[in-house]
Amino acid sequence: MKIAVDAMGGDFAPEQIVFGAVRAARKYHCEVVLVGDEPRIREVLRRERGWEELGIRIHHASEVIEMGEHPADAVRMKKDSSIVVATRLVKEGECDAVLSAGSTGAAVTAAQLILKRIRGIGRPTIATPIPTPKGVTMLLDSGANVDSRPVHLVQSGMMGAIYAEYVFGIKAPKVGLLNIGEEETKGNEQAKETYQLLKAMHTINFCGNAEGRDIPKGNFDVVICDGFVGNVVLKFAEGLAKTIMKLIKEAIRESGVLAKLGAFLLMPALKKLGKRLDVSEYGGAPLLGVNGVCIISHGSSNAKSICSAIGVANDYVNGNVLDHIRDALAKEEILTNDGEKK
Amino acid sequence: MKIAVDAMGGDFAPEQIVFGAVRAARKYHCEVVLVGDEPRIREVLRRERGWEELGIRIHHASEVIEMGEHPADAVRMKKDSSIVVATRLVKEGECDAVLSAGSTGAAVTAAQLILKRIRGIGRPTIATPIPTPKGVTMLLDSGANVDSRPVHLVQSGMMGAIYAEYVFGIKAPKVGLLNIGEEETKGNEQAKETYQLLKAMHTINFCGNAEGRDIPKGNFDVVICDGFVGNVVLKFAEGLAKTIMKLIKEAIRESGVLAKLGAFLLMPALKKLGKRLDVSEYGGAPLLGVNGVCIISHGSSNAKSICSAIGVANDYVNGNVLDHIRDALAKEEILTNDGEKK
Repeated sequence: MKIAVDAMGGDFAPEQIVFGAVRAARKYHCEVVLVGDEPRIREVLRRERGWEELGIRIHHASEVIEMGEHPADAVRMKKDSSIVVATRLVKEGECDAVLSAGSTGAAVTAAQLILKRIRGIGRPTIATPIPTPKGVTMLLDSGANVDSRPVHLVQSGMMGAIYAEYVFGIKAPKVGLLNIGEEETKGNEQAKETYQLLKAMHTINFCGNAEGRDIPKGNFDVVICDGFVGNVVLKFAEGLAKTIMKLIKEAIRESGVLAKLGAFLLMPALKKLGKRLDVSEYGGAPLLGVNGVCIISHGSSNAKSICSAIGVANDYVNGNVLDHIRDALAKEEILTNDGEKK
Repeated sequence: MKIAVDAMGGDFAPEQIVFGAVRAARKYHCEVVLVGDEPRIREVLRRERGWEELGIRIHHASEVIEMGEHPADAVRMKKDSSIVVATRLVKEGECDAVLSAGSTGAAVTAAQLILKRIRGIGRPTIATPIPTPKGVTMLLDSGANVDSRPVHLVQSGMMGAIYAEYVFGIKAPKVGLLNIGEEETKGNEQAKETYQLLKAMHTINFCGNAEGRDIPKGNFDVVICDGFVGNVVLKFAEGLAKTIMKLIKEAIRESGVLAKLGAFLLMPALKKLGKRLDVSEYGGAPLLGVNGVCIISHGSSNAKSICSAIGVANDYVNGNVLDHIRDALAKEEILTNDGEKK
């Protein structure tokens, strides 16, 4: 596996990206092409002993797309930006996958414009892995598209299920439709129509509606929703986790020496738990539905999460996910029956 | 203040409901009418010494609407159910407010059918108070309606702001529109249209888009969204909180004696924090937009939360919220300009 890594994207780029790539090259024995400002990347690499013996090379790109820029405009204008060049390496068959922790909008747009959608897929979706007590739940779409038509949600369900099966190794993954109740008559128009399509499908293991609480409990392997809802839920979870951590720290700081000792003694158990629920173990969210393997990492990614993300890309490529998606589209008519006709 | 309490609604009814009502009658010196099966209520009351000296009386109702029943059918058929009778007591001027911890759908339907919507309000909404490090954020609509039109969301914003001001005493409450980004061009069609209406209003303090993470951080006093999104977010939060608690307990159980000692020493600080974030301190969610004060409590309510909810109803009645809502509707044209015309 040969992966193009956008070395300039992310809050801690290029340092953490480069360190993560080196770690992954050692761990997964894969080839890595670091795309970005060559002198800066070289300077960071110099701090990593023995990197020359790994399958790492640098591909210079003179521009960077910043977080604030309009994705479509930036991708069109900055032809020599790290994310555009990295995506092009996949298009040209030079690399098998592309990874970026930079602007999500830019990465999605670059993938859509350069790699193009898989024939039959209406809208590519971002699938975010959420750690749960039972393993991992893929939530998709987690923000690529809003006002999706039922057929788009159904396609998301199919792609998420294939990903869960061939990348995470879950047999017949349980697919749920995010809704406000268990009954099939519940929900908004989008959910009710989508339910009927999912129910009629035979290529996925549709298990009915998932409620908000089913996500953290891990009751489904794949949960489908509109990108508006997915984005709100994920950002809510992020904010809640940060707020709770902050409040616990405050509570300990304000309390007496016994509570402080208690926190100290409890730390190892909590750290172990934290590791189990650590999103960075999953490294990144795949963009599903384009002709190429594309992984989007969180802006705050460190070397560890970049390394995990490259591992994920490795499994993604080896799982032949794209071929399985194309097969499913050919096999099941509902998947390409555009909602507009209804 | 005289409140009609549905004594039969809730997972721990009638016991916890009756105990909570007695506690509230003592604490707030209000009158309480316990509506439901008289012999059962009397039996519970017998365990509370001195209840006869409080302003508590029983109003018999022979039926109960169960959680699984279809709300509209049940409300129409079971004319002598506790929730229908309790709501009717408000309609007839016998009571100032109604409170139920039973089926939310039944309580909302009873309020809509018996109390009717406030003239000009398109759809009543449930406003759920969420404790945050900065105080409390009202999230509405938290599940009464889906596929709402922009004008409905705008009305929710107005009602939520009035509630925050006159019940929680927050001056010029900050109102945010739940969306997937800060910029006004972000979001689905519903959010984009609603943004433009909110921006043009002068009776509320609209502060722009709120992202998912802004809710737990407490960056807004009122957050408006479609009931589909609100329901998913609240159930997600509930599930996440339960899952984290379960995992922490497991982690402690599986670890050594030192970690167990640590947990013991840390407990008082965590309990204090838990109290600060305890939803039951706010007791219940008001249903806004009907001609009467109606509070919906969580099905798992205990005596403490019922008591808090009666306190909330007290403030709700004393804050003249309904009059303020009617005034606002008369003052601001945008509030009654139906989205259909656009």
